Amino acid sequence: MDYVYAPGKNHLFVPGPVNIPEPVLRAMNRNNEDYRSPAVPALTKTLLEDVKKIFKSTTGTTFLIPTTGTGAWESALTNTLSPGDRIVSFLIGQFSLLWIDQQQRLNFNVDVIESDWGQGANLDVLESKLATDGGHTIKAICIVHNETATGVTNDLSKVRFLLDKYKHPALLLVDGVSSICALDFRMDEWGVDVALTGSQKALSLPTGLGIICASPKALEASKTSKSVKVFFDWKDYLKFYNLGTYWPYTPSIQLLYGLRAALDLLFEEGLDNVIARHSRLGKATRLAVEAWGLKNCTQKEEWFSDTVTAVLVPSYIDSAEIVRRAWKRYNLSLGLGLNKVAGKVFSIGHLGNLNELQLLGCLAGVEMILKDVGYPVKLGSGVAAASAYLQNNIPLIPSRI
Amino acid sequence: MDYVYAPGKNHLFVPGPVNIPEPVLRAMNRNNEDYRSPAVPALTKTLLEDVKKIFKSTTGTTFLIPTTGTGAWESALTNTLSPGDRIVSFLIGQFSLLWIDQQQRLNFNVDVIESDWGQGANLDVLESKLATDGGHTIKAICIVHNETATGVTNDLSKVRFLLDKYKHPALLLVDGVSSICALDFRMDEWGVDVALTGSQKALSLPTGLGIICASPKALEASKTSKSVKVFFDWKDYLKFYNLGTYWPYTPSIQLLYGLRAALDLLFEEGLDNVIARHSRLGKATRLAVEAWGLKNCTQKEEWFSDTVTAVLVPSYIDSAEIVRRAWKRYNLSLGLGLNKVAGKVFSIGHLGNLNELQLLGCLAGVEMILKDVGYPVKLGSGVAAASAYLQNNIPLIPSRI
Amino acid sequence: MDYVYAPGKNHLFVPGPVNIPEPVLRAMNRNNEDYRSPAVPALTKTLLEDVKKIFKSTTGTTFLIPTTGTGAWESALTNTLSPGDRIVSFLIGQFSLLWIDQQQRLNFNVDVIESDWGQGANLDVLESKLATDGGHTIKAICIVHNETATGVTNDLSKVRFLLDKYKHPALLLVDGVSSICALDFRMDEWGVDVALTGSQKALSLPTGLGIICASPKALEASKTSKSVKVFFDWKDYLKFYNLGTYWPYTPSIQLLYGLRAALDLLFEEGLDNVIARHSRLGKATRLAVEAWGLKNCTQKEEWFSDTVTAVLVPSYIDSAEIVRRAWKRYNLSLGLGLNKVAGKVFSIGHLGNLNELQLLGCLAGVEMILKDVGYPVKLGSGVAAASAYLQNNIPLIPSRI
Amino acid sequence: MDYVYAPGKNHLFVPGPVNIPEPVLRAMNRNNEDYRSPAVPALTKTLLEDVKKIFKSTTGTTFLIPTTGTGAWESALTNTLSPGDRIVSFLIGQFSLLWIDQQQRLNFNVDVIESDWGQGANLDVLESKLATDGGHTIKAICIVHNETATGVTNDLSKVRFLLDKYKHPALLLVDGVSSICALDFRMDEWGVDVALTGSQKALSLPTGLGIICASPKALEASKTSKSVKVFFDWKDYLKFYNLGTYWPYTPSIQLLYGLRAALDLLFEEGLDNVIARHSRLGKATRLAVEAWGLKNCTQKEEWFSDTVTAVLVPSYIDSAEIVRRAWKRYNLSLGLGLNKVAGKVFSIGHLGNLNELQLLGCLAGVEMILKDVGYPVKLGSGVAAASAYLQNNIPLIPSRI
Repeated sequence: MDYVYAPGKNHLFVPGPVNIPEPVLRAMNRNNEDYRSPAVPALTKTLLEDVKKIFKSTTGTTFLIPTTGTGAWESALTNTLSPGDRIVSFLIGQFSLLWIDQQQRLNFNVDVIESDWGQGANLDVLESKLATDGGHTIKAICIVHNETATGVTNDLSKVRFLLDKYKHPALLLVDGVSSICALDFRMDEWGVDVALTGSQKALSLPTGLGIICASPKALEASKTSKSVKVFFDWKDYLKFYNLGTYWPYTPSIQLLYGLRAALDLLFEEGLDNVIARHSRLGKATRLAVEAWGLKNCTQKEEWFSDTVTAVLVPSYIDSAEIVRRAWKRYNLSLGLGLNKVAGKVFSIGHLGNLNELQLLGCLAGVEMILKDVGYPVKLGSGVAAASAYLQNNIPLIPSRI
Repeated sequence: MDYVYAPGKNHLFVPGPVNIPEPVLRAMNRNNEDYRSPAVPALTKTLLEDVKKIFKSTTGTTFLIPTTGTGAWESALTNTLSPGDRIVSFLIGQFSLLWIDQQQRLNFNVDVIESDWGQGANLDVLESKLATDGGHTIKAICIVHNETATGVTNDLSKVRFLLDKYKHPALLLVDGVSSICALDFRMDEWGVDVALTGSQKALSLPTGLGIICASPKALEASKTSKSVKVFFDWKDYLKFYNLGTYWPYTPSIQLLYGLRAALDLLFEEGLDNVIARHSRLGKATRLAVEAWGLKNCTQKEEWFSDTVTAVLVPSYIDSAEIVRRAWKRYNLSLGLGLNKVAGKVFSIGHLGNLNELQLLGCLAGVEMILKDVGYPVKLGSGVAAASAYLQNNIPLIPSRI
Repeated sequence: MDYVYAPGKNHLFVPGPVNIPEPVLRAMNRNNEDYRSPAVPALTKTLLEDVKKIFKSTTGTTFLIPTTGTGAWESALTNTLSPGDRIVSFLIGQFSLLWIDQQQRLNFNVDVIESDWGQGANLDVLESKLATDGGHTIKAICIVHNETATGVTNDLSKVRFLLDKYKHPALLLVDGVSSICALDFRMDEWGVDVALTGSQKALSLPTGLGIICASPKALEASKTSKSVKVFFDWKDYLKFYNLGTYWPYTPSIQLLYGLRAALDLLFEEGLDNVIARHSRLGKATRLAVEAWGLKNCTQKEEWFSDTVTAVLVPSYIDSAEIVRRAWKRYNLSLGLGLNKVAGKVFSIGHLGNLNELQLLGCLAGVEMILKDVGYPVKLGSGVAAASAYLQNNIPLIPSRI
Repeated sequence: MDYVYAPGKNHLFVPGPVNIPEPVLRAMNRNNEDYRSPAVPALTKTLLEDVKKIFKSTTGTTFLIPTTGTGAWESALTNTLSPGDRIVSFLIGQFSLLWIDQQQRLNFNVDVIESDWGQGANLDVLESKLATDGGHTIKAICIVHNETATGVTNDLSKVRFLLDKYKHPALLLVDGVSSICALDFRMDEWGVDVALTGSQKALSLPTGLGIICASPKALEASKTSKSVKVFFDWKDYLKFYNLGTYWPYTPSIQLLYGLRAALDLLFEEGLDNVIARHSRLGKATRLAVEAWGLKNCTQKEEWFSDTVTAVLVPSYIDSAEIVRRAWKRYNLSLGLGLNKVAGKVFSIGHLGNLNELQLLGCLAGVEMILKDVGYPVKLGSGVAAASAYLQNNIPLIPSRI
């Protein structure tokens, strides 16, 4: 059943799904259980509580929905908004595009602020919209914290600053799919109303859980939302939370135990250390790209992403060929350029349960592939640049000192 | 992380989730993969084709949706119908009730045909509705093939017969959650338009896949459906089927390989042998119930279910206490009576990857529990009745002859 | 790679190897590790200490040898004795026979005390030998605590009593392969000098660890033993114990973590509760055998074994046919009669991580097989007898009260 | 139970135990089974046959012994030789030293030919011994194919040439622990009489199987060997081979299925491709060492090992500190210098299921560590040298073309 076996480990550097650590694989290696027995609610209770920590929220309410990021988006929108509601949404790459497409198909009135792919959300335009919306027709701001397709991180604190500046009551809905558990994320401090992620991203689990945190204001909004939904309806969850049985329908027993293990690993490492590790991995990757003489798709340093780096290739190279070759010759999985950047970028995902030597192996592989496809890279140059930085910055492993 | 450890195997006899066979656990014990590499589409293609066989369909189109049975319901409804459409739906137990609740909340015009819990769908009433619906206001018949809460199996061939008799074009939407892969199910022969199941039932996988088969007529209907949906929209799947990449969003790599293994086991055993095995398990269970002097919640033999038996307890016993005691003393998981039958029935799920001696262990346990709670059962009586039948009917294991 | 797939769980009731609990399977689901890193010695240290508890020893020294029970025997003998040394050894069944064969081939002078198969060690003969051995020519008594082939448990406290009575300095070497972690075993109290078991028995691990506990007296004896050995030489272990690296050669990383998990489960249940559970399982099995009208191979109650029951079949039945049929029709694995009792007995192993309903499923299966092969058993009779006892004696599961 | 958790994968580059591929981990993730059922002998039969292929033998007899490499040594010696027999043995590093120690303690008359550590076996001395042994007092030549401690590969064909030249009937016993399944090994062609390896080396399994192939001449010799042994006695195996049940004592079910999976992977890749891959990994490593300005412990190219490279460090550096630091800071496991080369070398194991990018990650790590400990390495230099070679030599992955 392994259709395409190759010796050694697959080097998984797509920006999701990411490597699952062994303790998580172990935790999920189990039979099904009766989810109505006392055991599963007891486990669920700790998960709902502990999962708040990855959002840095104490006041939020969390939902673990058996779905993907796309479903989590839908859950965030349909529970807090009503058809026709005006949303301001930023189009900066493929994933923000897909979310906007969903918003439109769900019949919201989407006010799109577009940027070049490779730029962050244009907050100046947002400000002007807020400034002129004395009537509060804008019901929500929808923003992707980290646009996976281009490796762009938006500054959420600035969005909050603008909302506060104009005392605007719009909800702030954030796609944290490729940021939460990897980048600095502060639900409560930044006044985020709904934040969401998927289990297969920085949490390093299989796909299958849409993880949502809703602020009290979002929960309040959900009481009057007129969007039609059942599977994604928070009310059904809240009803079972009150009963103490927690589940309106059958959860994945394996993912619950897996999430427990994943959170335990995150907390053992320390969330701030996890974020610092991603910062190291991002910085090292960017130094390698620079050493290769290539450009980051992300146009300004303020938007650089520590979870994914999209690399622009010269026009005479098809970036899809790089991805194909990585897989066919080096057992390396890189991210494809999507849509507007198809053929122009390939991406290196450096998120989740990953360490520095894994990244350096990937970078060494990218160098050989670049040479394969005719780009005059100096072999070892990117690894040298990344190593020089890492050798100065990697801490000792606390459990081994 | 095992909150409630007990020695030996847990005896899992809830009507889902069910026991996962070892080969399936093994197949799922793996790291994530890039789902855009050639490997995952190649795997998906075989799955979409092979999964049709469990529906006995050659003309259907299949969808593997990262969701639960509840999501599969929503997918079936919102892709084929438009708000306000008249649906005829049968209320015969908790799961048909929940589906009807969903139908109503999705703004369909639900024409409910109610029966006593313990009876099957009242097809006489259906006939009278069809007979008087010359204008074809009924757009769909929604029916649960096997009502899990009461252990009632409906006769779908009769529904088809009635639709044909009145040349009625209504779609036939079937919840096969606790029937498909266990009971005789014939999508094409019975003219079912949408059939669905969940991975954690007779397929014996973890929760996480809603598995849907849509007839050409259902696909045609989906083109004009006005229900609002994005995550559940078949169009997005069909678009990626055409591209040969298959996935509009990230699938669970583990469940795909698990499904491959589960199908391989089913086909190795032979689907007809699987159904015969369930028939044996169902019959043996009913013989035990009879020997104990207890009544089946299902009121007539024609509705007896071969996947779940709901057992009525005397009025002086609380069936929930039976379930609690099973778990606390015998490491046995039985099904709770739900809603109208709460306290009155407990259920024995006998579906999925299960053999006769496992069932006999369960039945021996139920006998001891019945004695624990004060019911004057003759210990060994149910096992004796079941064994007498089984000893005459169990075939040799083909691979071991 | 499953040559002989059958639906549902295999019912594993041979007297070893036994069922591995899920938490142990999980713990072993891991990559290799460098055994010279600080992690493995740290783990080993806790194991060597904690494993003493299963022997009820505080003064012993433990060895975890990458071998089987046969290797553990050889280790016990060659480290404490010299070629030509006189050993008194009891021949009561196939496993004591094999050990004696080993003793003879290792050039010890074996003084065999034989009993009928189905009887325990003849301690009267031992006493007479001790009484007349004023010159202390007997260097060791070798005794199998629980003879697996016949289901006979010997009284070790009586052996100690006799040694003390005659102030005899002979070493007491005990095969505890099918007793330790299941039957009452008291290394220190009974003055056992070497006790040993194998990982695949009541510890419920895979095969691969020979586990040995040596008394200070045995360690002292090992200094002067002239038997030739290297792989099994305790000196090599002790050298690395002193260095704190623990391993003279590469251990199985997986079995070390598995042993950690197995011990954790044993200690969580409580060793005395584990022994009590085996007592219940043994008693229930014997009641079933009696109800079937069959005889226990073990001839007196004082020798009844709580880990394995060997059942005598009528002379017109071939017990091997029972074992074959169990496997071919019921996915049930029973123990074969070996050597002198081949064709005459089949055995039911009821040791390790096993609970009562599992056993009852097995007993129900045996009843059907007995009927298959023409024995006029009353179906349900054995289960009824066992259940009547169990229903009065099974405690609530402590973690679930 | 993970005492020393660190994020990301452990980079396992000790010369054994090595990384276990996922398909093998999956195959071993299973419950115990009755090894006397027809299934296990059927599996064993295919294993004994297929395992010959890794030795390139068609005439040999194979044994899968539940032990380690040390036990496999003992098995090879005690089955073919008698105490007092003269053996010629080569002392060239720690593992040949340990084998010689075993030979001496087993009372053979060991004629040691010593070389500097870093040199291969001195075959000139062997020749002079053979030339003067007209009386055939030499009963066996014992040689380590690949000395793990120093990374030295001996030329076995030359040993055979010398034996033939002098028509000497001595048995040729070969330790192939760190060579078989990785280096070119030709049992039949080279007239090897006993070859052996351990499961945790290039086969990429857990520790626990000593795998032995014996020539017809070795089997013949075993009939008259007077060495005392039971556990390791081939006769017991051969007896059960004849019976078709194969096992004189309980095998590890998990390792048997794991071996099946490991062999399947080897054969899928193709044994010659596996050897070529090891050749690439060895060459790349040596190029990196050279680029760093360091010396290989192996003194001449003819002895260079493609499975392990021992690197000499400058005298002002303690190589043990390199190993410690690798583990504490980079989650990298390197091999320690042992005995005479302690403190002077560290080793990089590049054997088993391993690919080029994994190795490059390791090499990048070693560079940073060298800098950490004060060696003036140019970061990226080793990776560059290795990559330049690999980029020209890595083939496409056949299953992905």
